[in-house]
Order: sequence, then C-alpha cells, then structure tokens
Amino acid sequence: MDNRYIIIMAGGIGSRFWPLSRDEKPKQFLDIIGTGETLIQQTYRRFKDACPEGNIFVVTNADHKEIVIEQLGIDPSRVLGEPFRRNTAPCLAYGTFRILKENPDAIIAVTPADHLIVKEEKFNEVLQSCFDFAEGNDALITLGIKPDRPETGYGYIQADQKKPVKGHRNLLKVKTFTEKPDIDLAKVFIESGDFYWNSGIFIWNIKAILSAFEKHMPDMYTVFNEGRDLFGTKQEHSFIGKTYAECRSISIDYGIMEKAENVYVMCTDIGWSDLGTWSSLYEHSSVDKKGNSLIRGEIFSYENERNIFNISPGKIAVIQGLKDYIVVDSDDVLLIVKKEEEQNIKQYLEDVKNATKEKFL
Amino acid sequence: MDNRYIIIMAGGIGSRFWPLSRDEKPKQFLDIIGTGETLIQQTYRRFKDACPEGNIFVVTNADHKEIVIEQLGIDPSRVLGEPFRRNTAPCLAYGTFRILKENPDAIIAVTPADHLIVKEEKFNEVLQSCFDFAEGNDALITLGIKPDRPETGYGYIQADQKKPVKGHRNLLKVKTFTEKPDIDLAKVFIESGDFYWNSGIFIWNIKAILSAFEKHMPDMYTVFNEGRDLFGTKQEHSFIGKTYAECRSISIDYGIMEKAENVYVMCTDIGWSDLGTWSSLYEHSSVDKKGNSLIRGEIFSYENERNIFNISPGKIAVIQGLKDYIVVDSDDVLLIVKKEEEQNIKQYLEDVKNATKEKFL
Repeated sequence: MDNRYIIIMAGGIGSRFWPLSRDEKPKQFLDIIGTGETLIQQTYRRFKDACPEGNIFVVTNADHKEIVIEQLGIDPSRVLGEPFRRNTAPCLAYGTFRILKENPDAIIAVTPADHLIVKEEKFNEVLQSCFDFAEGNDALITLGIKPDRPETGYGYIQADQKKPVKGHRNLLKVKTFTEKPDIDLAKVFIESGDFYWNSGIFIWNIKAILSAFEKHMPDMYTVFNEGRDLFGTKQEHSFIGKTYAECRSISIDYGIMEKAENVYVMCTDIGWSDLGTWSSLYEHSSVDKKGNSLIRGEIFSYENERNIFNISPGKIAVIQGLKDYIVVDSDDVLLIVKKEEEQNIKQYLEDVKNATKEKFL
Repeated sequence: MDNRYIIIMAGGIGSRFWPLSRDEKPKQFLDIIGTGETLIQQTYRRFKDACPEGNIFVVTNADHKEIVIEQLGIDPSRVLGEPFRRNTAPCLAYGTFRILKENPDAIIAVTPADHLIVKEEKFNEVLQSCFDFAEGNDALITLGIKPDRPETGYGYIQADQKKPVKGHRNLLKVKTFTEKPDIDLAKVFIESGDFYWNSGIFIWNIKAILSAFEKHMPDMYTVFNEGRDLFGTKQEHSFIGKTYAECRSISIDYGIMEKAENVYVMCTDIGWSDLGTWSSLYEHSSVDKKGNSLIRGEIFSYENERNIFNISPGKIAVIQGLKDYIVVDSDDVLLIVKKEEEQNIKQYLEDVKNATKEKFL
C-alpha cells in the first residue's frame, strides 16, 4: 500500500467551457456541475483512500500551484509546477521521475483532474484490481469505458477478447488505439462490442513506465534521466524550466500507449465522463421538468426547454422562450449559443482574443 | 417670451424597461437609446431654447430630485418633488400653481421627460405656433402625431377637419379622445385619416388650465388653490405632502382633456415615440446588417437576426443563433425574452419581486 502513488494531471485550460473556464481559473478548479466541490477536489477525494495521502502528486501549470494548494489543502511539495503547457507525456515524465527519487518501487495511477466518475465505489474496486496487477507485471493499464453511444469526441481502445488476464476480471490485452473516429466508424466500433473509450486514467509500476519512456520516447527519457538526482532538491525548479523548454508537446497516448506492446485495458462501467463539452455536462446535471439544466444561479424560467443555464452567483436571470441553448453569465462575459453549435465556442473565444487583446480570457 | 414656461413631468417608473429601468433610476434618467444623453437630458435640451432657462420646472418623485439636479444642472428650486406617485393631473396642478405664484400670465408647455422626438427643428416650429395661439386663447392644445401604423398602445385623438384654426396651420378642434383601442378599431382610425396619436405634450395659458381644473376637477382645484400662497415658500413642502396624500391618482387626459370643450390638436409629424416598449425603442435605434439593435455593450454576434441587445458597459457578450429576442444584461439581472412576449416583462418583474423581496427592482 505504501508503494502506491497517484499523479493528478491538472494542466488543462478547458477553453471549451469559456467563459466559465478562464486562464486564471480553468475548468478543473471550478465547481462546474454544481456539486459543491471543484472537479479537482472531487478527483482528489476519489483517490485519497487508494494510497497514503502524502503519495498524491498534482502536476499543474506553475501559475496554478497556489490554487491547487488552496483547494486541496495539500503539502506544497507535492504540487509540481509546469513552466509551459506540454501535453501529458512531459507531465508524466516529470511526475514519474519525481516519484522515482523517493520510491523506486512505486506503483502509480495517473488521472486527469477534470473528469467525472459517478460510480465511485465501483471505480475503487477496479482501481485496486489494477494496482494489484500492475505491482507484479510489466504492464501499462488503461481504464476503458464501456461506450453507450457512438461518441466522436473520444479515443477508442480495441480489446483483445481472446487474451483475458487470469484472476483479473475484465482486464484484457489491447489490440488497437483509435483517435477520435468519424461517426460511421464510431458506430462500427459500438456494434462490434470490442471497443472502449479511452478514459486517460492509467495504472503501471514505475519500472514499466520508465522502460516505456526509454523505449518509445528516448529523447524525452534522456533529458529527464540526466536530472534524476535533482528531483526533490532545490535544483528541480531550474532543471524543469530548462527541460520543458526543450520538450516536445506530445500526449502519453500518442507517445507511448499507441506504440507499446504491453498495454492492457481494464474494461469497466464507472459512470465516467471527461466533461469535455457543455452537452456532456448536461447529461450529468439535474434538470427541471422542461429539461433545463440550472447548474448555477437564481433563474426565473418561462417556456424554456432543454437549455443549460449557468448564471453568476448573486445575479438573477429572467429567461423566456429558449430551446436547446447554452446561457452562461460570468462577471464580465455573457455567452448565449445553441447547444448544437457549441463546438464553435473555441472560435468565438479566438475572435474575442483578437478583438479585445485577451482581456476576457 | 418671458412668459413662456415648461413643465417636464419626470415621475414615471418605466417598469417595462426593467431590468435597465430600476426604482432607483427609472427610464427617463437612462441613456436608453445610446445617444450619449439620458432621456430627460434630451427633453431638457429640446425645450431650453423655447423659454428663458429659469422658466423650466421639473416635477419628479422626491427620491429623484438629486438625480434631476445632477443630470440637468438645473437650479434646485425648479425641481418639484412629489411625495407619492399620483399620475399626471396632480403633477400638473402642482407645477401650474407653482408657476402661478411667480407669473400669473404664464403660457405653459407640458411634456413627459421620457419621450423621443427625432425631428427637433420641426418640433420647435410647431411649439412656437402653439405658444402663439395659446397666448391669446382659452385653449387646451395637445400635440397629435400623424400615425403610421395601427398601434394599440397609444391614445387616439379625432380631429375635426371642419374646424381648422385660421392662421395656425394644422391646428384643429378636437372631436373625441379614445384610450388604447383594440387592433380593429385602430385600423379603422388609421384608414379614416382623422385620428392622431396623443403625445402627452400640451400647451396652454395658465388661466385656461386653471379654469379647466376648476371646472372639471373642482376637488383637486380646491385643495391646491387653498395653498396658493404657500407655493415657492418654506411651507410648500409640507403643504404638498398633505395635499398629495388626499389627491386621487388620475391622468390629465382622463380628468380634463377628454371632458373639456376647448381642446385643440396640433396635427404634426415630428418623429415622436413614447419609447414605451423595447420594440418601440428598436424602431428608433440603429441596427446591424442582420437587423440586430446593439444599443449598448460590446457584442460578438453570430447568426443573430432582429434582436435587441443591451449589455452592461465593460462586459462582452458572445451571442449565437437568436432571432427576435430582447437580451438585456445589467449588473445584477440578465433578461432574455422573445420580442413578441415583451408585454410579459411586467409579470416577470412581479414574480421576481415576490421571490426576492424586491432586491432586484
């Protein structure tokens, strides 16, 4: 148990949730579904019984270290600040080498900070099973989510039904990874029954992941390995600054998972969502009789149907006659957009950036 | 010229423009069409060359005396505070007796503070002509606006085409007054060509209006007349407090204009609107290529048509896919309502009142 570690990846920007999610306070630091906890607080609580509390590390943008410490009440030495955004591979190299310094026998679970898991008890059982398998095996395990629709926004993992792992129910060898498919392919995946959504939650022992870095991303392995003695010392900060400047921006999926031979998928159904879109949020929030999701705010609603309303605290909204819209009111930005057009929010944000010199980001 | 006086009636609450118009700052004190002037500032400027500046009186709710003084830079002794809202008859009785005290030969033009007149030059000519006629005649003149549509929100005046006043073009005897007609009647009015909208702008000499009060509203005349020596003295304030408490709430139209025999209408076309609804505002504001009226605020507009947008200064709005809506964002209230449902705003405001204990009024 003392060898178990968690790395929470909290470096995202969540621009699809603008104007709620801002440079200063991205999505993971918001109570975006109105439960009373921010997403990173939910994530931290979800994992904290799975290992000694001191064994949880959070990797985040250096600008957000303070907010992590404040929201989690975590020992500041466990919050690793990234000087630049470099996707998940450098983030995990950093976390892994930091853990290596204090425990070369670590078994590590890796998780995004901003996902939702509704069936927490089931998740914990699954996690234990993965830890158990990872401890004694050179294996890279990913949690695969049983899909219930041909979602085109997720990556898919094909499991090899012929290669189950004995003694670990639902743990299978991985056959293929596919990045976001088009709708036709997604439908084929769903029908086949062999495909699972890639949750971005991984479990492995430290030797397995370091070997994988060495084999599949030798350049990144080399630069981090050169500083292996500096982690946990005063030199870590400047070493990371220099190293990140040289790093490619690349995901762990693309850099390692899609290439490695020793990848396993734990096929499960834990009520997972990456909360990557307002619509995915909508599916997980409570609604009124007309299907309106009143996530936040005091709303006087008349003849509205299937909208997502999110209004600043202390403000009221009187809304009439909207169907299938997203209405988000933050202190300095009002967003009204049809749900079906939400993929354009990023473009709108670009337009605002260009016109306002980033005042509203 | 020195006998000419203006009474600006600024006691309205403008609740149809909530949440922009608030108890604290009703419509007449707002730059509601985005011209850089508030409505009362526009009104004051429009009349100030028609008489000596010291001859303009403003009657307003006592709570709003300060804001009138601040917005107009007017001598505080010319701002008459009403202790209660009592409609236009008591308001004009107050103004008239106040003027009587300093000039028993006054000729008075009376105007609401919150209307729009686009053709200001033409209006000035018309006003001069009315003053000229009113000076030597026992006449109650109302400005009648040539209607361009069968509007059901206005009162209508039927002119007697057979009784034009010689030497005063377009000045006719009035035949009938009709309060807001239904749409069928309004259409008949328009087709007949004899009907004009009642603008609520009146011109008369002080003897004519005092006689009319005495004849048609003897109760109100009597109570005000009892205090005639107190106007302009230290006792005015307490006298008005007592008198208003006893007054009926009644309009000058209902109390006098509809009953008097000596009523004339100056038939004109001065680009007038009472700005009584968002839609009337819409007609007088500039629009973008898609017909959206961006009255106030920085708006990023995508695929919107024929909306009215009014956003707090310093805030931006990103709005997509709305057609024929009113969107008003004030500091503490967001209103989104279909243009065709705007008559319900008053009801929504009631609901908010009941639910929030008047916090948002």
